[in-house]
Amino acid sequence: MAIKEIKTSKLDPEQFIADKVEEIRATVGDGLAINALSGGVDSSVVTMLGHRALGERLKTYFIDNGIMREGEPQLVVQIFAALGVHVELVDAQDEFFAALKGVTDPEQKREAITQTFYKDVFGRLVRESGAKFLLQGTILTDVDETVAGIKRQHNVFEQLGIDPQEAFGYKILEPLVQIRKDGVRKVGAALGLPESVFNRMPFPGPALSARVIGEATPERIAIARTANAIVEDVLAGVKAFQYMAILHEDRVTGTRDGKRDFGLQIEVRCWNSVDARKAKPTRLPWKTLRGLSARILAEVPGVVSVTYNIAPKPPSTMEVV
Amino acid sequence: MAIKEIKTSKLDPEQFIADKVEEIRATVGDGLAINALSGGVDSSVVTMLGHRALGERLKTYFIDNGIMREGEPQLVVQIFAALGVHVELVDAQDEFFAALKGVTDPEQKREAITQTFYKDVFGRLVRESGAKFLLQGTILTDVDETVAGIKRQHNVFEQLGIDPQEAFGYKILEPLVQIRKDGVRKVGAALGLPESVFNRMPFPGPALSARVIGEATPERIAIARTANAIVEDVLAGVKAFQYMAILHEDRVTGTRDGKRDFGLQIEVRCWNSVDARKAKPTRLPWKTLRGLSARILAEVPGVVSVTYNIAPKPPSTMEVV
Repeated sequence: MAIKEIKTSKLDPEQFIADKVEEIRATVGDGLAINALSGGVDSSVVTMLGHRALGERLKTYFIDNGIMREGEPQLVVQIFAALGVHVELVDAQDEFFAALKGVTDPEQKREAITQTFYKDVFGRLVRESGAKFLLQGTILTDVDETVAGIKRQHNVFEQLGIDPQEAFGYKILEPLVQIRKDGVRKVGAALGLPESVFNRMPFPGPALSARVIGEATPERIAIARTANAIVEDVLAGVKAFQYMAILHEDRVTGTRDGKRDFGLQIEVRCWNSVDARKAKPTRLPWKTLRGLSARILAEVPGVVSVTYNIAPKPPSTMEVV
Repeated sequence: MAIKEIKTSKLDPEQFIADKVEEIRATVGDGLAINALSGGVDSSVVTMLGHRALGERLKTYFIDNGIMREGEPQLVVQIFAALGVHVELVDAQDEFFAALKGVTDPEQKREAITQTFYKDVFGRLVRESGAKFLLQGTILTDVDETVAGIKRQHNVFEQLGIDPQEAFGYKILEPLVQIRKDGVRKVGAALGLPESVFNRMPFPGPALSARVIGEATPERIAIARTANAIVEDVLAGVKAFQYMAILHEDRVTGTRDGKRDFGLQIEVRCWNSVDARKAKPTRLPWKTLRGLSARILAEVPGVVSVTYNIAPKPPSTMEVV
């Protein structure tokens, strides 16, 4: 099925919302729908569209997979409560870490998270809810990159020739699949989402496991979480599309208290981009880079080296894994 | 044996040269001495001191271990020929790569190079030459770092409690052991070495194998060699203590021709330092960083990501391995 792109410059957010609300109502009828909210802008916009279309007949879950940013689950539930949308928080940390144990290959990590999410945790919630419709925040860039084989997004089944009804037992609705990130933001604003949500920095589906090269153990995720919190704090005022900290698997030589210490390296990336298809490293002030390095070295245990990405996408990608 | 430091500010290069020439003559008597020249400032200064003291009774070898910088062996032989010093070029690439095969641990890499150098290649040259004295370019910083256990320099035996006479069959003279890098440069200038030699950027004993995280295969060394040549070319005009390119072992996601490509990452380090004990990353212009990244991505096969080091020493070290 060819997807007809709606260019952001031609996007009328109010009309888009009206069309999608109508489509969702027509498809779901008087049935039940369900969706998982990650707190990112895409799933937040889908949640609002779905609630506008279906009200209480859309059940929204936030699944705490253990690889979220600091304080993320509680924050997301609070933001949506303030918008009148109830989000059910589900603690599934142990299930995800069990699935990630020993897995080092990037594709296998994504696959472990996808399988745990759909087949185990979310699949169980869907079966218990009796919902036959699933709303997802897939955008056109996800489809492009999945088709190109660059990355496998967790929410693009049709394009891969997988029938979700057959594979997982439900029908997937993807109301954002004709637009890109900047279009999603325009729709989010029109839906009345707070700017902190619709202008929110993109965060990958595999969450912090995409910020860890190699195995995503609870300990390594905790290191990546602390480093990402520092980067988000230091760069909060910077105009950029996305910034992140990556924990490398390579060990590098360092010194602590005058003794050799094979330590960890954190890589910082800060991207300028419009729609994530192309991106350039942000020219940060030297003082900011020094401050980032000083805080990461002081506050993240075991780290002896910090780098800043200077390669564009392509040939790099935004996330490392 | 406690070493008495001669501070650079108190160093009289002419007096130092006279003292050391006298010491070398007194120790070697009418015997034969031998030394290995790496082309670095330390071994270059020792070569000049030794030739001033002993003339033809010092045999100087340049051992091509296969992990040198681009064009290095030929360049060094030429420079010393112009100074009236004959340097014998020895091709030992196969022996070194055989010893490095399968070795990934940084200490074991150094050890493999040390053993191949002393026991096999240089040991053989010493035995064949009949020389009983070996001149080495150990400086005080090497001793400090070896004693502290930060790094194991290949030329510090006494401090580690190893008797080179017993272990390798010869006596080692270290005329530079009381001074540091900036002192060595002053002595080099006074000895009439061209500025390109005595102001030469430091290069590690384990050469390009220190610029490769993980196994130092001929292929990986070739990648590091190309990347280092680009960094030296682009940063040639920059006032810095040392700059380098490091090939990481971690694979990172990238794209080539629209398809995913798990690729290589090169880290660039450029240090400001006086004596290598402490060092800070150099604040390079953004345009320079962009130029570095563009050339490395275009010219080094398989590279999809480039970073710039922003951590100081300590807790980092200058070299990564």
